[in-house]
Amino acid sequence: MQQIIELLAVVFSALYGVLLARRLKLDFVGVYSLAFIVAFGGGTLRDLFLDRHPLFWIGAPHYPVIVFGMSIVAFFLPPLSEHTERSLNIPDALGFSFFSVSGAAAALAEGAPVFIAAMMGAVTGTFGGVIADTLCNRIPSLFRPSTPLYATCSFVGALLYIALKELPAIKPVAAPIAVAFIFLFRLAALRFD
Amino acid sequence: MQQIIELLAVVFSALYGVLLARRLKLDFVGVYSLAFIVAFGGGTLRDLFLDRHPLFWIGAPHYPVIVFGMSIVAFFLPPLSEHTERSLNIPDALGFSFFSVSGAAAALAEGAPVFIAAMMGAVTGTFGGVIADTLCNRIPSLFRPSTPLYATCSFVGALLYIALKELPAIKPVAAPIAVAFIFLFRLAALRFD
Amino acid sequence: MQQIIELLAVVFSALYGVLLARRLKLDFVGVYSLAFIVAFGGGTLRDLFLDRHPLFWIGAPHYPVIVFGMSIVAFFLPPLSEHTERSLNIPDALGFSFFSVSGAAAALAEGAPVFIAAMMGAVTGTFGGVIADTLCNRIPSLFRPSTPLYATCSFVGALLYIALKELPAIKPVAAPIAVAFIFLFRLAALRFD
Repeated sequence: MQQIIELLAVVFSALYGVLLARRLKLDFVGVYSLAFIVAFGGGTLRDLFLDRHPLFWIGAPHYPVIVFGMSIVAFFLPPLSEHTERSLNIPDALGFSFFSVSGAAAALAEGAPVFIAAMMGAVTGTFGGVIADTLCNRIPSLFRPSTPLYATCSFVGALLYIALKELPAIKPVAAPIAVAFIFLFRLAALRFD
Repeated sequence: MQQIIELLAVVFSALYGVLLARRLKLDFVGVYSLAFIVAFGGGTLRDLFLDRHPLFWIGAPHYPVIVFGMSIVAFFLPPLSEHTERSLNIPDALGFSFFSVSGAAAALAEGAPVFIAAMMGAVTGTFGGVIADTLCNRIPSLFRPSTPLYATCSFVGALLYIALKELPAIKPVAAPIAVAFIFLFRLAALRFD
Repeated sequence: MQQIIELLAVVFSALYGVLLARRLKLDFVGVYSLAFIVAFGGGTLRDLFLDRHPLFWIGAPHYPVIVFGMSIVAFFLPPLSEHTERSLNIPDALGFSFFSVSGAAAALAEGAPVFIAAMMGAVTGTFGGVIADTLCNRIPSLFRPSTPLYATCSFVGALLYIALKELPAIKPVAAPIAVAFIFLFRLAALRFD
């Protein structure tokens, strides 16, 4: 289960990364670099903070290869027009929901206390995008005056996941429920933005 | 002693972080994120560089909770007016003085040579602010043409601390003396800016 | 051999860093900080990613001292005029060629697979500059629409190094050949930019 969630997190985050890079008209190296940072930036910070080695994408070296393949495909697609920006929200929200839960689960497995584990979920879910925004010289949404509740969705969803895991009857589906919660919460926040 | 200095460093840095975030009119998540990064960014870099695990704020999980509480209180304060910017200098200078000494002390305890330990003091004291400035898309003062001697205060103060610690008669008060030295040096630099 | 390449990488990268800092009219702390980040940023990321401790510049504490000395010398030079910007390309390309090979070699020595090792070469070669650009609020060349093949040179050259090392007859000169390849590839890319 943990592996599937992590794989889906990587795929959707990288999809968001390559589409964003195409919108910014980057060359192939830029596309791959941006997709790599969006997909692996947050989890890398979490792994460094918790001293988990090898890093999750070094221990699973097919992940960078998948992102490499997606970057090649994306590079031959036509650049996205301006008004498709909105459709970027779906892969973004999916990648970030999967990574929030996966990040909290990994922190719990390392024995982190609840508050730290929920924060690690939020870091894993949001910091790929924060680092990518910073490198592209955009102010990360986390630090813009009107944030549509990005990190809040992630933190609350991670807490929900940690709580559901304690209930024996619900434990097996705790992760999918929390992912769905974060995704819907995020889409609702965007709608009312 | 080391614990008290670290605690004061966290409190004053977080105070600076939340006040700055209120000036930038960030929402609650932005306030907490900025305070967190100012308070823990420099020390996290030091801990990663020296391979100290758990990181100081994971090994002392009440630190993030203190910063969380301060962020809640700050969020209900009225936003600061423009001309209070100057008063932000006091908590900033205090947090950075305590962290410079605390950073050098931690590096010495890991067996780092003097030059590296003084640099780690400067990194711990200044990089929380550098990372926060970068994320908010401001040029860190370290890289602006007219820096009022920020990192210099920190580096020289850390060297002073390392030297005083070698004198048996002064050792017990080496840390408070170095903190006071950095704080006054910094205020003097601001005055002549 | 590995030590000589690393030393030359540090010297040329720091030379680029101090000259760039003089162009930006930074004070002494700014000059040293920028040179430090250009020279050690990429290798630090590689070491953190691969859990190599002590970091290469902590394990060889004469490196920061060399960069410190170069910063002092550079600080007393007259600031560079605008049209010397072009001449910065030579130390930049040299530093980045040496670091790309040195980064790949270090990753191989840790047992990283080929794809990861070549990526670590590219990270070591380019991320000092990426971090420095980000801190100075410039968009890193990696993320500008028209990149003159920066990271590509590095990645391909690292792959070449890894391949040549497998040939017993060529192994002793694999590193110099790969460094020369990256350097010439990079200069050619700049010429046709």
